[in-house]
Amino acid sequence: MTPDQLRTLLDEVQSGRRPAAEAHRTLLATLRAEPLADLGFAKVDHHRVTRQGFPEVVLGLGKSPAQIAAIAAAIAERGHPLLVTRADDAAWEAVRDRLPEARYHEVARAITLPRDVPPGQGRVTIASAGTSDLPVAEEAAVTAELMGNEVDRVYDVGVAGIHRVLRERARLETARVIVVVAGMEGALPSVVAGMVAVPVIAVPTSVGYGASFGGIAALLGMLNSCANGVSVVNIDNGFGAGCIASMINHL
Amino acid sequence: MTPDQLRTLLDEVQSGRRPAAEAHRTLLATLRAEPLADLGFAKVDHHRVTRQGFPEVVLGLGKSPAQIAAIAAAIAERGHPLLVTRADDAAWEAVRDRLPEARYHEVARAITLPRDVPPGQGRVTIASAGTSDLPVAEEAAVTAELMGNEVDRVYDVGVAGIHRVLRERARLETARVIVVVAGMEGALPSVVAGMVAVPVIAVPTSVGYGASFGGIAALLGMLNSCANGVSVVNIDNGFGAGCIASMINHL
Amino acid sequence: MTPDQLRTLLDEVQSGRRPAAEAHRTLLATLRAEPLADLGFAKVDHHRVTRQGFPEVVLGLGKSPAQIAAIAAAIAERGHPLLVTRADDAAWEAVRDRLPEARYHEVARAITLPRDVPPGQGRVTIASAGTSDLPVAEEAAVTAELMGNEVDRVYDVGVAGIHRVLRERARLETARVIVVVAGMEGALPSVVAGMVAVPVIAVPTSVGYGASFGGIAALLGMLNSCANGVSVVNIDNGFGAGCIASMINHL
Amino acid sequence: MTPDQLRTLLDEVQSGRRPAAEAHRTLLATLRAEPLADLGFAKVDHHRVTRQGFPEVVLGLGKSPAQIAAIAAAIAERGHPLLVTRADDAAWEAVRDRLPEARYHEVARAITLPRDVPPGQGRVTIASAGTSDLPVAEEAAVTAELMGNEVDRVYDVGVAGIHRVLRERARLETARVIVVVAGMEGALPSVVAGMVAVPVIAVPTSVGYGASFGGIAALLGMLNSCANGVSVVNIDNGFGAGCIASMINHL
Amino acid sequence: MTPDQLRTLLDEVQSGRRPAAEAHRTLLATLRAEPLADLGFAKVDHHRVTRQGFPEVVLGLGKSPAQIAAIAAAIAERGHPLLVTRADDAAWEAVRDRLPEARYHEVARAITLPRDVPPGQGRVTIASAGTSDLPVAEEAAVTAELMGNEVDRVYDVGVAGIHRVLRERARLETARVIVVVAGMEGALPSVVAGMVAVPVIAVPTSVGYGASFGGIAALLGMLNSCANGVSVVNIDNGFGAGCIASMINHL
Amino acid sequence: MTPDQLRTLLDEVQSGRRPAAEAHRTLLATLRAEPLADLGFAKVDHHRVTRQGFPEVVLGLGKSPAQIAAIAAAIAERGHPLLVTRADDAAWEAVRDRLPEARYHEVARAITLPRDVPPGQGRVTIASAGTSDLPVAEEAAVTAELMGNEVDRVYDVGVAGIHRVLRERARLETARVIVVVAGMEGALPSVVAGMVAVPVIAVPTSVGYGASFGGIAALLGMLNSCANGVSVVNIDNGFGAGCIASMINHL
Amino acid sequence: MTPDQLRTLLDEVQSGRRPAAEAHRTLLATLRAEPLADLGFAKVDHHRVTRQGFPEVVLGLGKSPAQIAAIAAAIAERGHPLLVTRADDAAWEAVRDRLPEARYHEVARAITLPRDVPPGQGRVTIASAGTSDLPVAEEAAVTAELMGNEVDRVYDVGVAGIHRVLRERARLETARVIVVVAGMEGALPSVVAGMVAVPVIAVPTSVGYGASFGGIAALLGMLNSCANGVSVVNIDNGFGAGCIASMINHL
Amino acid sequence: MTPDQLRTLLDEVQSGRRPAAEAHRTLLATLRAEPLADLGFAKVDHHRVTRQGFPEVVLGLGKSPAQIAAIAAAIAERGHPLLVTRADDAAWEAVRDRLPEARYHEVARAITLPRDVPPGQGRVTIASAGTSDLPVAEEAAVTAELMGNEVDRVYDVGVAGIHRVLRERARLETARVIVVVAGMEGALPSVVAGMVAVPVIAVPTSVGYGASFGGIAALLGMLNSCANGVSVVNIDNGFGAGCIASMINHL
Repeated sequence: MTPDQLRTLLDEVQSGRRPAAEAHRTLLATLRAEPLADLGFAKVDHHRVTRQGFPEVVLGLGKSPAQIAAIAAAIAERGHPLLVTRADDAAWEAVRDRLPEARYHEVARAITLPRDVPPGQGRVTIASAGTSDLPVAEEAAVTAELMGNEVDRVYDVGVAGIHRVLRERARLETARVIVVVAGMEGALPSVVAGMVAVPVIAVPTSVGYGASFGGIAALLGMLNSCANGVSVVNIDNGFGAGCIASMINHL
Repeated sequence: MTPDQLRTLLDEVQSGRRPAAEAHRTLLATLRAEPLADLGFAKVDHHRVTRQGFPEVVLGLGKSPAQIAAIAAAIAERGHPLLVTRADDAAWEAVRDRLPEARYHEVARAITLPRDVPPGQGRVTIASAGTSDLPVAEEAAVTAELMGNEVDRVYDVGVAGIHRVLRERARLETARVIVVVAGMEGALPSVVAGMVAVPVIAVPTSVGYGASFGGIAALLGMLNSCANGVSVVNIDNGFGAGCIASMINHL
Repeated sequence: MTPDQLRTLLDEVQSGRRPAAEAHRTLLATLRAEPLADLGFAKVDHHRVTRQGFPEVVLGLGKSPAQIAAIAAAIAERGHPLLVTRADDAAWEAVRDRLPEARYHEVARAITLPRDVPPGQGRVTIASAGTSDLPVAEEAAVTAELMGNEVDRVYDVGVAGIHRVLRERARLETARVIVVVAGMEGALPSVVAGMVAVPVIAVPTSVGYGASFGGIAALLGMLNSCANGVSVVNIDNGFGAGCIASMINHL
Repeated sequence: MTPDQLRTLLDEVQSGRRPAAEAHRTLLATLRAEPLADLGFAKVDHHRVTRQGFPEVVLGLGKSPAQIAAIAAAIAERGHPLLVTRADDAAWEAVRDRLPEARYHEVARAITLPRDVPPGQGRVTIASAGTSDLPVAEEAAVTAELMGNEVDRVYDVGVAGIHRVLRERARLETARVIVVVAGMEGALPSVVAGMVAVPVIAVPTSVGYGASFGGIAALLGMLNSCANGVSVVNIDNGFGAGCIASMINHL
Repeated sequence: MTPDQLRTLLDEVQSGRRPAAEAHRTLLATLRAEPLADLGFAKVDHHRVTRQGFPEVVLGLGKSPAQIAAIAAAIAERGHPLLVTRADDAAWEAVRDRLPEARYHEVARAITLPRDVPPGQGRVTIASAGTSDLPVAEEAAVTAELMGNEVDRVYDVGVAGIHRVLRERARLETARVIVVVAGMEGALPSVVAGMVAVPVIAVPTSVGYGASFGGIAALLGMLNSCANGVSVVNIDNGFGAGCIASMINHL
Repeated sequence: MTPDQLRTLLDEVQSGRRPAAEAHRTLLATLRAEPLADLGFAKVDHHRVTRQGFPEVVLGLGKSPAQIAAIAAAIAERGHPLLVTRADDAAWEAVRDRLPEARYHEVARAITLPRDVPPGQGRVTIASAGTSDLPVAEEAAVTAELMGNEVDRVYDVGVAGIHRVLRERARLETARVIVVVAGMEGALPSVVAGMVAVPVIAVPTSVGYGASFGGIAALLGMLNSCANGVSVVNIDNGFGAGCIASMINHL
Repeated sequence: MTPDQLRTLLDEVQSGRRPAAEAHRTLLATLRAEPLADLGFAKVDHHRVTRQGFPEVVLGLGKSPAQIAAIAAAIAERGHPLLVTRADDAAWEAVRDRLPEARYHEVARAITLPRDVPPGQGRVTIASAGTSDLPVAEEAAVTAELMGNEVDRVYDVGVAGIHRVLRERARLETARVIVVVAGMEGALPSVVAGMVAVPVIAVPTSVGYGASFGGIAALLGMLNSCANGVSVVNIDNGFGAGCIASMINHL
Repeated sequence: MTPDQLRTLLDEVQSGRRPAAEAHRTLLATLRAEPLADLGFAKVDHHRVTRQGFPEVVLGLGKSPAQIAAIAAAIAERGHPLLVTRADDAAWEAVRDRLPEARYHEVARAITLPRDVPPGQGRVTIASAGTSDLPVAEEAAVTAELMGNEVDRVYDVGVAGIHRVLRERARLETARVIVVVAGMEGALPSVVAGMVAVPVIAVPTSVGYGASFGGIAALLGMLNSCANGVSVVNIDNGFGAGCIASMINHL
């Protein structure tokens, strides 16, 4: 039941064309089954834009190129910004065929098609520990940029050469929110969070071998950070971190 | 907004005392914030009875005796059946002071105060592997009994002496649903499920030591059961199994 | 020793053709070695039909196409319904060559050949959280349908957009038993079980990455469900859930 | 070397009282050993206020009452706001003896002594799933309040009765940042994050038993949240969540 | 139905006092429910002696002193050897009151009351790595002795001083079966098994701290032994190892 | 220093050709560095035959076909029985080229070349739960046969149809030692061990999916067996179990 | 056989009092059973001093005060330096009664009684992250001091305030070996190792809560250190780290 | 700012060409942003040589051949020794094209290009348990050799034939530091460390199957070593061990 249908019903009651008792029954039945907030929204994606300010994002993992392209086209048709994460070459080719204006970010393994979105308040800084962390860092960066944020990349500043991150203190201190991406022991977020007064979103990566256990070591390190201001997302979840950073930067 | 209030609103619209536009705004605002299904239900617990056929159950773990007694009294006052699980002596004393007619099941560590509830269709059988599994088995049994089920207890039939469970085949075959409680290697549900054609609810217990890891061994064993019809609940969750068995037995 | 053979033996004793002492020895020896329930059942599969109401199901995982086809043919020859799970293209081709009337369910990765079976009492509803959970959900659905149940599919109702599942409340409330399939955080069973009064069989899937640990996150979430009525099967075990749902629906 | 000392040195070089070569050596030696950012800050805690906007917080866990009281007094003497977390009765008595104006928050197990701090921009909402999660939720609330934030408590809105959290949609939508505290399956953050467009800080708690594994189930659930905007802190880390929420609310 | 009852039935059929058809029904019903092997054995424990050569052993863990004493008395009354493992002082006092002739092995935490049992073929050697492993080693030793084996104790021969175990080569080589008890890294079984040609039963102990994880390190080490002839029992399961060693020594 | 060299030295001392003091120094130096037990044994493999009664066995896993063939030829040249486990087709071809008389056991993935070895005392029975466990069961069987044991195969007797294993009671009871191979929940060893009085070597397999975690579920189940007489080897370690069984059968 | 006995034997051969053949047999038999390195060493501890330069150290964990005092006295009597780790008050009292000159290190929970030992080559630096890590850091410091090393303590330099450790660069650079003790995320060893060119022994501590899992997070972080030169010991193993540092410092 | 630039600035202040206030501002700004230790070092790698005595090492894992070759060329151009670890054939070909004088170590999977480096003080001994551990052992050996150390390889001395390692006692005792590489149960470091008085760097390998869990069993065994002097690096981290051994050998 859309807001218009509700208005019509009430008008009918008012005009006597529909008995109040019948309207009562109709309304009760409808409302028990379905929250009104969704009335009149035929498409889930439209609703998410309304509710959260950004449309559904396509996680490419485990979907076929055809499926990805179809969903991407549906999002683009409505004029919404498009983001496909974890997209391989085949997915990119399928999307490109339908959306020639889309762009593929190779390192980030992401497909985007930007639209006008409200700009963020300040700058989102993405720091990463090593070169192997780049795909995840870039996924965060591409996500934040698509969502309207200015992004500053501070890469390859791992703690084994502590001077590297210290030298970037000025850039870190002027960020509004910082995403820190690190694998192996995952110590960089603690060091960065100790240097600044803004929120740090820590992203553990699966970079490493042996007792890194696919990112568990970095994840645990970040959850146990002795510095204030560090919250954590899933292993390799660059998209999630970029999305949270954008939310914070748009407050 | 209760059903009665909704009716009044519609009557006012019909009679012209309230403009349709104003009613429209009121209804939209209310419905966005609150699903109608809760209109007029001031207490959460009343609603659960309506929704699920049994009131809220009190998990005694981590609550003070005073808290437990207060919640128990509130449930009993409304005439609902009372069940407190994981209740120690102090909890029991606190409840007994306020509800002298309540009963304490020592082995099950449970407090009950029965009320009339619809009877189940058949019999719920509770099988357990060893004597150390009794507290969990009894928690399941007491739960099922309070919810209106006839309960058959088949205890101490662990698989190390397979003749013990084979001898109880007749009792198992005539059950409508079977709860199987076992610690250590947790193999009994597989054997029982292979003997019958009814659902088996498996409850791993924390009985054991060393590589039982507090019930993980039994839990994994049950999740990997090679027999059909076995579903599993949390370690030591006798209540949960009794509750599911009752649901099935009331279908 | 079949029931007929037993009768013959007793007749011979009665008629004096066989001495009681000799019959005593024969019976004792037989019974010590072999439970009578199996007398006269030359085939394991026949027995399972008798005991559990459905023949053995073929788990395709780790079997060669030739092995799968041979077992499938043996089951079909006896007139039993056939179900092969986790069947890839090669398995399907091998089965199709021997059983042209069989059918392949691509999403569910299952091969079926239906036979008349007793119909269930009500409706089995299969709910799933995301599109990546479909193979597991469809395995449950195909299983339940083959076992004689009417199946209602309620797909793509994950909790991140809670209105989606709320909108399906009516379909959920009228089910006799609900299978809920979810990966990632596995929260959907808790929400569904809180809305209905029937048993919920929760199936964690291996959908996700990083700290989903191949389905462990969803599995643990479901085992710790704060809602009543939730029991759990192995990760990705759609067949098991469909089978339990059918058992419950046939009570 | 303080900024003033540096100025004096340069003045001496300019005036010829100190040779440039000698000044060169002095500066090089000092700078190699000590980052200038710390010049003139005799106390670590003063520095943290400058760097992060809030002084050091005392984690009571594993410190003796005497140690806690001594650190607390040192912080209070400098006029900084005081926060001691995980403080038991003995710690509180020791602190009270030295700081009679301090206050003990029993549920949160926290000691505070507020000072004027800059107010936050909006409202921090703390949502919790069950009553057993209150100590952690209150630790977050007390932390956020001490740091100058208006706090809205939305407690006991676990997903097993989904209407409870839906009814609070308005309060959730008007928050600037939301802390969501939950144990057991930890599903509440996913549901809340799906309803709003602001950052959600998820706090898993150790509430539960068996396969909750001391909060691992909730932690994994939150890390795998299918909703956007969810970042996670350590198990039971109410302080950390409150601190991050305050940072975001002060941007 | 005992063998005698079966004979009576057959005699009645032979004599015509009982119709063959009725006897047929009676026999079928009985045999479906109960394996004949148990006919006439009223007590489970008697049966285990017959089946396995040794009566039920009482695991004291998680039983009350009264329960332990009652079971112990029942076993002793029948003239069976008594073994209670994991018995604390209270359990010992309760048993001693009823069975004054019983004996308490303090280090092994075991209660025994020996009876005549068949002697083993050779010698059971129990080797242990460190002094903290003694309780588990002694549990194995006491078990093996009670079951009729000559036991040779080779204690404190951990691998960090490899000469210690090398010096005992002669005693190890003349054993018929060896139980090796070790905590921490659990390396002793590999070294011992490499020196001899007889089976080695490895018992990991929970001795250690930190990354020993309550015996997991030792358990995994033993399961991965690069030496032939090593099989493993549960952490701290001295009884199990002694029992298996006795079985092998009685072949 | 070989026994002959030692004799020469002593002869020289006796004859006065070598001073006792010099011989003293030589002997001390040699003995500190090298245990005499190895004197004169140029080849490791010869020694193992002497020490353990069977030569080194080749674990094919992670070795190249050429390496495997070279080691196999070296063993065969000395007239020792050859066993290569985990051998794939390429390994088999490489070995066959050099040892045409060798044989490949396809299911067991093993290469053998038998020699005369002392026969075992009784029969080694290999029981397995399901058809997917066959490779591991056959590895155990082939190992035991090569080592001189009569092997009885009791396959496909999983606990989900408990009558299957019960029907084999006679064959199990007459074994001298039993190897039980099972994946998934790994319950079969408990049931078998409860039926017999001989040692049971349990072999968990990696058969299963989801929460079987590559055999951990079965491993834990077997370590926690409530039946006496069960010891356990590594996941999929059919060779190890066959080897231990042979050791026991040769006592 | 002691060196003297060996000499006597050779003298007897030389003088003709003992035939060479008989001496040959005697020597062979002895040497097969017992490595000569132990001849004449009645006490294990004397041998360890010879072999490793320091006598056996007493791990107090799980020993009774009486046992600890007896071992301590035996070590002290021989004039060896004494170290008892993990000693509580009761252990200290028992040792003090027998060795009044011993000293108790309260924070380190260690008992020492120093003797003259060779001094180390340089300085052992012990760095720790937080005040809760002090017991482990002090155990390392006390161990290193007792073994003859000059120890420099650099405490409370956790990475959340990175300037703290940077300020100590000079002290770190002049160490010969550094022990770094840290709990929670365990990031300090990576930062320190990146600043110096000497070996870093990392000690994870069990300090933390929730997802620190008793030190696992710190342990994994240290094992995955991206800096060169970091090796790791067991959780809370301050003694082990101090011992290794001393070995390195004595090279 | 290089030391020369600093000198120039001070000269300008002295001569009056630059006002002290302006110099003050310049110095403060520079120093806040950048630790002086990096002044004048444009390249990170140059700095590491200065700081740690060896340039950056290239971990080949997860880098493309082109990336590896580019980094390798950059290192070689500066005249630094080159080490690429975990290099496959493609990486080697790419490097060889640019650096024809480089060498590929096939077993170690490493590329080197040696330069003059200071020689170590003594000998680094690399011991390994089995032939499958060779790649990791050789990675350690190649690393140590490139860093200027004499390396002694003691391979295939696993503990299952304890005489093998005992026979190498002399070589072990004369090493200055020992790297011990072992998979499966990882017991070799304990045995070796018990024989010598020098530091042992233990390297667990992922060699094994089943419950070796990719090296966890060996890792835990080594962390729990009962011998003094054992520290541990990550699973398969031969490079790390060789690097630490070199550091110790250069003290």
